[in-house]
Amino acid sequence: MITVLRLSHRPNRDERISTHCGLVARAMGADKIIYSGEYDEKLIESVNDVSRRFGGRFAATYEKNWRKVIQNFKGIKVHLTVYGLPMGEKIREIKKKKKNLMIIIGSEKVPGEVYKMADYNLSVTNQPHSEVAALSVFLHEYYKGKEKKFSKAKIKIIPSERGKNVREKK
Amino acid sequence: MITVLRLSHRPNRDERISTHCGLVARAMGADKIIYSGEYDEKLIESVNDVSRRFGGRFAATYEKNWRKVIQNFKGIKVHLTVYGLPMGEKIREIKKKKKNLMIIIGSEKVPGEVYKMADYNLSVTNQPHSEVAALSVFLHEYYKGKEKKFSKAKIKIIPSERGKNVREKK
Repeated sequence: MITVLRLSHRPNRDERISTHCGLVARAMGADKIIYSGEYDEKLIESVNDVSRRFGGRFAATYEKNWRKVIQNFKGIKVHLTVYGLPMGEKIREIKKKKKNLMIIIGSEKVPGEVYKMADYNLSVTNQPHSEVAALSVFLHEYYKGKEKKFSKAKIKIIPSERGKNVREKK
Repeated sequence: MITVLRLSHRPNRDERISTHCGLVARAMGADKIIYSGEYDEKLIESVNDVSRRFGGRFAATYEKNWRKVIQNFKGIKVHLTVYGLPMGEKIREIKKKKKNLMIIIGSEKVPGEVYKMADYNLSVTNQPHSEVAALSVFLHEYYKGKEKKFSKAKIKIIPSERGKNVREKK
């Protein structure tokens, strides 16, 4: 069970990046995303709408108090940050523990206490880039590229060499 | 040599996603990003500014005519799309050819001709998510997680277990 916690969302400014975080969490195999920061119904609705249409049990929710979310979480807490240790060195150790996982991703400024509350502060390169990228590469490595199945999909994309092949259940 | 081509950028609406595309391209080992769509000096400047500070030779540029950019490119053209074949099946084949690579990433609507102009249409899962994620996972797989070195960096982040360790050259 993998939960993603997205810190300090701001409507408008972060809308698309936060949406991408939610969709990546779902597509790459996490079970839910909790958004913190400012409440943004449109964001949560748009991520859950993709789940409804493309299947699976992924859920996007909101919690105002991110400190409590981290404190109350039973399992391993991984904070993805450009300042952390290379993810590659730690991912096997984390998997071996076979516990629930919380992946914390921030926005521009992550409060210092997050670094202390996390069990691991890990980086996907020590270069500045993107929380969307960090999350996707971490999940890709964690699952070794094995793709999740999405049950009860109304819309299914069939891989094709050229063009678009989409099956829709009516 | 890897070139990323980002299609149909729109200032304001795409600013942050397009910035993330540029930073991911750089951090994960590409050599340059070409933005198409509307010209956005601020975007290009912000990506190049990261290169100047964090080192390496990455360059962000703009080309209005993306068709010509694709047509004139000598090498393998990979279009990342949710509709494509799973990337995992093709990446080894592409690497074996040892040619220059162009990675094409779109925004909401990619013109149909891009699917024809590309040598490969590849997907990172057939679920809707993010061009930032697709690009990062593709590059991560392509380089097998081997991190690039960035020469002449003014700012260097030293990986640490907790907190921030940044070295700045004056």
